[in-house]
Amino acid sequence: MVSKNQIKLINSLHQKKFRQINKLFIAEGIKVIQELLNAQYELDQIYSTEPLFEQVLENKKTLISDEELKKISALTVPNNCLAVFKIPAEKKFSEKGLIVALDSIRDPGNLGTIIRICDWFGIEQIICSPDTVDVYNPKVIQATMGSISRVNFVYTDLVSVLQKTKLPVFGTFMDGENIYKMEVPKEGIIVMGNEANGISEAIEKIVKNKISIPRFGTLQKTESLNVATATAIILSEFRRKF
Amino acid sequence: MVSKNQIKLINSLHQKKFRQINKLFIAEGIKVIQELLNAQYELDQIYSTEPLFEQVLENKKTLISDEELKKISALTVPNNCLAVFKIPAEKKFSEKGLIVALDSIRDPGNLGTIIRICDWFGIEQIICSPDTVDVYNPKVIQATMGSISRVNFVYTDLVSVLQKTKLPVFGTFMDGENIYKMEVPKEGIIVMGNEANGISEAIEKIVKNKISIPRFGTLQKTESLNVATATAIILSEFRRKF
Repeated sequence: MVSKNQIKLINSLHQKKFRQINKLFIAEGIKVIQELLNAQYELDQIYSTEPLFEQVLENKKTLISDEELKKISALTVPNNCLAVFKIPAEKKFSEKGLIVALDSIRDPGNLGTIIRICDWFGIEQIICSPDTVDVYNPKVIQATMGSISRVNFVYTDLVSVLQKTKLPVFGTFMDGENIYKMEVPKEGIIVMGNEANGISEAIEKIVKNKISIPRFGTLQKTESLNVATATAIILSEFRRKF
Repeated sequence: MVSKNQIKLINSLHQKKFRQINKLFIAEGIKVIQELLNAQYELDQIYSTEPLFEQVLENKKTLISDEELKKISALTVPNNCLAVFKIPAEKKFSEKGLIVALDSIRDPGNLGTIIRICDWFGIEQIICSPDTVDVYNPKVIQATMGSISRVNFVYTDLVSVLQKTKLPVFGTFMDGENIYKMEVPKEGIIVMGNEANGISEAIEKIVKNKISIPRFGTLQKTESLNVATATAIILSEFRRKF
């Protein structure tokens, strides 16, 4: 049984403003919830339509009906469980290793896929411009499949971070250097740009190392690669030599 | 103005069965429609809420209201135009070059993204198992952003094709050879497996060259890469040396 007030609170968490006020976010489905529990995210409450998560204390679990789950879910086709977790404190950005910087990524599915890719390639830090979609957006959480727990996020003024850093800064541009023929370092910041407009002008000025992924084939093409796909290919290139 | 019968026909094209009976498919949005027109797809009719596509003959264009567009669109938020095209005859599969084979890919978004990636890397042929999602599914067409016009599709019995081919056959498996350390040929067939189950048993037996994309980082991980992401990384590896 879930109260009217709980329904109201949980639904408010579909919006960034109320996630920030309440310092809470939602995750749905056994797999994602289990990954967050394993990663020691602080649980507020699990709502499920059948008994699940044996290891979780009873006072942290509420059995609800399918209709109730439908009322609180952010999914078109709800799963059998939804959990509310506390948003952890932002860890400090540490200037080492390979770091991905996101300049105004707007699509939650893209951000979720990028997080999964970063997790696969052992990227432990992602820095995001303030207008990048919120990592605690329910659609991002679902798309990460739990890998969010292994990546540290910092939302900050990208221009200022990139101006100050001692690490080499890379960014993808149509006229950049062929990534397949470059020597790449073990440490650096790789900037990925907005879905429609690419890297913003202010940041383009700071990016010293312009790179590009070559196209193949003979036919004339107007299309570009999706930003998550481009991230995968570039991280693969940075990792393959080490 | 669009008649009741036209609305009925166009809506039926949201389903594979009726696309096959009528040999028609739908595409939405200026960009996708323009790419298909450029590629000489045979147009049945364009429905738009404002005058568009100057180069198209008037008898091939119908002005409709926003409400009418909503009735025929397959999108949650309709664009300003929808076109009906004839499904072209399937071209014969030609056994040369680098070919991608899809073993039961079910998600239309994944198939659309894979087509864009193949287009980028100059892959001109994709062979699909019969249970792979239909390439003329409206969601696939939207996700390809028009790049479908540059890739040839064949739906056929994959097992039989892979048994007969003289080309080397590659497939991704958890215990495959590190793709970064392999010599790869210029020609071959690369099999990508189902989202949940990977490559099927029948096909696993035929795949002589098992490959894998290494993971990085020290933390324990349970997640795999999305099939479209894996396709991008593997095609990048096959193309980067030539």
